[in-house]
Amino acid sequence: MRQAGRSLPEYRRVRSGLSMLESCSRPELVAEITLQPVRRYGVDSAILYSDIMLPLKAAGVDLDIVPGTGPVIAEPIRTAADLATFHELAPPDVDYVAEAVRLVVAELGDIPLIGFAGAPFTLASYLIEGGPSREYAKTKTLMLADPMLWHQLCIRLADISAAFLEVQIRAGVAAIQLFDSWAGSLSAADYARFAQPYSSRLLQRLAPANVPRIHFGVGTSEQLGLMADAGAEVVGVDWRLPLAEASRRIGPSHAVQGNLDPALLGSPWPVLAERVREVIRSGAAAPGHVFNLGHGVPPDADPGVLAKIVDLVHAEGPALRAEARTEGLVA
Amino acid sequence: MRQAGRSLPEYRRVRSGLSMLESCSRPELVAEITLQPVRRYGVDSAILYSDIMLPLKAAGVDLDIVPGTGPVIAEPIRTAADLATFHELAPPDVDYVAEAVRLVVAELGDIPLIGFAGAPFTLASYLIEGGPSREYAKTKTLMLADPMLWHQLCIRLADISAAFLEVQIRAGVAAIQLFDSWAGSLSAADYARFAQPYSSRLLQRLAPANVPRIHFGVGTSEQLGLMADAGAEVVGVDWRLPLAEASRRIGPSHAVQGNLDPALLGSPWPVLAERVREVIRSGAAAPGHVFNLGHGVPPDADPGVLAKIVDLVHAEGPALRAEARTEGLVA
Repeated sequence: MRQAGRSLPEYRRVRSGLSMLESCSRPELVAEITLQPVRRYGVDSAILYSDIMLPLKAAGVDLDIVPGTGPVIAEPIRTAADLATFHELAPPDVDYVAEAVRLVVAELGDIPLIGFAGAPFTLASYLIEGGPSREYAKTKTLMLADPMLWHQLCIRLADISAAFLEVQIRAGVAAIQLFDSWAGSLSAADYARFAQPYSSRLLQRLAPANVPRIHFGVGTSEQLGLMADAGAEVVGVDWRLPLAEASRRIGPSHAVQGNLDPALLGSPWPVLAERVREVIRSGAAAPGHVFNLGHGVPPDADPGVLAKIVDLVHAEGPALRAEARTEGLVA
Repeated sequence: MRQAGRSLPEYRRVRSGLSMLESCSRPELVAEITLQPVRRYGVDSAILYSDIMLPLKAAGVDLDIVPGTGPVIAEPIRTAADLATFHELAPPDVDYVAEAVRLVVAELGDIPLIGFAGAPFTLASYLIEGGPSREYAKTKTLMLADPMLWHQLCIRLADISAAFLEVQIRAGVAAIQLFDSWAGSLSAADYARFAQPYSSRLLQRLAPANVPRIHFGVGTSEQLGLMADAGAEVVGVDWRLPLAEASRRIGPSHAVQGNLDPALLGSPWPVLAERVREVIRSGAAAPGHVFNLGHGVPPDADPGVLAKIVDLVHAEGPALRAEARTEGLVA
């Protein structure tokens, strides 16, 4: 469960007084924060504590992550000249991430660690808008008005995120996840033309490493197949589509990840438990299913509820899945 | 083009110093603002200057529309007791809207005027969250945790919006549009269970008036068929889906409305013009097509660009549509 840490009191305690990016640069602290949800919930894998903007900062982009806002870019990208303000990522630029991964892997033992990075479209949207956006008008305008600059920017971002993931893989992560959080703001046709080629470049570069690649976005019902084809073994699905239908769109050779609506975590437990079971049953239509929320864990989530969800998935998941698959074969 | 007015200097001039709700309550001003985009662009219909929250204010909800934020509710709905803070809408509560419609219709002559209201789910989300939201967690939690209160609230909201639309219809609007702007935050299954029944109640009540009903939301690719079935002649589509595919999902007995991405309005004209043509060609797959943006006009839109789009649709639309339909019949 991504961002499970931020709802924990033990997380808020160790983060106290430190900025997001500062906390991501301290290997011991990263290790501690990464391990906190594993200790508390007994989940089947850990996800590295980091941020998709971190490698951009390391590559020279002047940015901050502002509490309550998100990434804020000092000088948003407007022209080709702005590309000179940051460089390719060299592994030593993120030495501290490699060190953090090694610490976490040593502590985790048999539990796999998932590393992650941002996809070019989503990273580009922050760099062009200057921060979070609802409409992505500047991003889409630049994309259409100056396709050459768009191309150069996205190639650069693909290579930075790929280098960032290679550092994590070499240091020992067992799987990687590529976040294209805002890809769902594009039509499928624009995604295919302006986003997928760069995510594909990035994911293909990682193929020789032979670790499972998870590809996730929000509101991406129409581009799930394209996200699979970009080069991923697992496609993350938000809560808008039942996993069985998502799997039909993705195709029979990919696993799915998801997709409990995080906005439902405050619901009464019997209602929520039934939703968890529905996700498991629907996910049985796919050849593999990583149970997860359909988006990050909200900061105000009740850790007790998350614990109950993990316990339910462990206790009932295998039987529910087996039962659903048997019924699927009969039907 | 909905909200076309707000990008116009003549609009900003007459609105100056007046709050949104205040400006909506002055019939002469409403008429002037409604007519401004018609005069400037020569569009084929006008859409009433109003707000989906206005009938709630008239029904007793303590709310304001805050510039740069949106609706802000003084006391968000939490319990059944909160339903007592507002009442059903009686036509005299919105007399000034009827008066504004009569003024506009008299000025417009043969040009049809479209009235509108908010759908219960979207209105409920504002009342429960207390304002705009990204996650709708409080709304979804109440929906699942207290389905009886949800039901009572949505029945009330359906009846208020229906009464508001009946006032507009009696005063002379030629068509109505129902905005369920945030319905796309729901899965199709939750939409079918918790939103569609109330939108359907509302739209069915208007059936005897025999005016075309347009039903629109954002990010609703998965629920277009349900939105059509709720009782609409036209389904509005955002920019995420080509109109031909949208029409396939909606079915052959409904027209479509849309769906140029408003975030593209800043693109170079030749690129944008080609997008406009694509929308027309794709919309030809539906039995009827109202050309529009896929969402409201952004406040910073260039009026010159909007004028060129209207001219292009008028100049090339009929031929493009005829050509696309001929090709469609051959294929």
